[in-house]
Amino acid sequence: MSDLHLGQHISRQFNEELEDVRSKVLHMGGIVEEQLANALRVLVNDESELARIVIDADAIVNSLEVEIDEECTRIVARRQPAATDLRLVMTVSKTINELERIGDEAKRVAKMSRKDMDGVLQDDVRVELAHMGELVREMLRQVLDAFARTDVDTAVLVVKADAKVDKRYKKIIKQLIDRMRDEPDAVPAVMKIMWAVRSLERLGDRCQNIAEHIIYMVLGTDIRHIKLDDVLAEIEAQSELE
Amino acid sequence: MSDLHLGQHISRQFNEELEDVRSKVLHMGGIVEEQLANALRVLVNDESELARIVIDADAIVNSLEVEIDEECTRIVARRQPAATDLRLVMTVSKTINELERIGDEAKRVAKMSRKDMDGVLQDDVRVELAHMGELVREMLRQVLDAFARTDVDTAVLVVKADAKVDKRYKKIIKQLIDRMRDEPDAVPAVMKIMWAVRSLERLGDRCQNIAEHIIYMVLGTDIRHIKLDDVLAEIEAQSELE
Repeated sequence: MSDLHLGQHISRQFNEELEDVRSKVLHMGGIVEEQLANALRVLVNDESELARIVIDADAIVNSLEVEIDEECTRIVARRQPAATDLRLVMTVSKTINELERIGDEAKRVAKMSRKDMDGVLQDDVRVELAHMGELVREMLRQVLDAFARTDVDTAVLVVKADAKVDKRYKKIIKQLIDRMRDEPDAVPAVMKIMWAVRSLERLGDRCQNIAEHIIYMVLGTDIRHIKLDDVLAEIEAQSELE
Repeated sequence: MSDLHLGQHISRQFNEELEDVRSKVLHMGGIVEEQLANALRVLVNDESELARIVIDADAIVNSLEVEIDEECTRIVARRQPAATDLRLVMTVSKTINELERIGDEAKRVAKMSRKDMDGVLQDDVRVELAHMGELVREMLRQVLDAFARTDVDTAVLVVKADAKVDKRYKKIIKQLIDRMRDEPDAVPAVMKIMWAVRSLERLGDRCQNIAEHIIYMVLGTDIRHIKLDDVLAEIEAQSELE
């Protein structure tokens, strides 16, 4: 399936434009991955000196979003792409929007975790946070991989993985609520961790959104509001036709 | 400026298609407004019987999003619109995505506020919540109005209003944190209000996003990552040219 968008166009120039957009999206994705990795090191390992790097990367991510989006509009206006290519361009436009917001959430995680945190994060919560962070990083890595290879199977894995993130999320929230109950003086600091955890959970949602956009791009079926089982049945039906 | 997209097309049929999409967006916006209004009544007035209505409306909003998005793709593929119309279609696609998520946040507000809330919400917080809710409702009303009339000035008001929402948001969060400190047993219930307040704040952000999309549609300038002052200067410069 990985060659879906290649070798079908009359214009070599057009092909190159599409490839250029795709590689820019992956470049942008790489920066956001880096932001998330650093934000997690701030949150889990108290490496607060990394927060600045996460925040500074935001400007690059933002300008890449605008640049790629304008390139998409230009391509649509000039090349008037047909169905499959148009879907690719629309998917890119939505994907970069999600990526930009993933960067924003990473920034929130990095910012919230910087100050007044001495001794607030207990070991049990820290372990859970590290696990949840790894899950979300893996989702982001996989979804960029699915985008790069136009790979529906990997995209489906990402959609499925979100349930695991949500499960861990709920566990951590419960731990933090218990903590605030037991130690009222820690409430303001614990709330900061709470927001960071919430951002991580949203980050997972956004990876799932990108995965859904990829599935739509390939299948031409909008799965955003369909149950996962029905999506899997749809994918199976399609691959039987191939 | 309200006639920007009318009367310029060769094809009357095309005009009708664009108008149809626009009116569907406004229809969708109306349903989301209703969701927000009901969610606020659940949260502020304890009218928990309305939560069901907010949740049920979600399916309609979701299917409208998919329907309008597919119509946009069809229009681009068939009509191959030039710059201005293409911007309109791209803006619609982004706007309905934000609207759908505004509906999701309203659903979160309605859900979180339903249970175990007896006596948790103190009068001072309730008053603040009612104010914040009104601000957000006004933002949504205005941004739909700005979309309907392609009105940049109103869109700018919405971008500006978000700061007011954020100010109230911070005040309420502080009140709730104090509350949890003073009354540890209330922590789980107060956290539910916390999430609802966070959803309201995000709702305001999403209205601001739509406003920015509208400004982009009209000016052709992507303002998402530009400071507000620079945007205002840009708008002034453009209107001097008219």
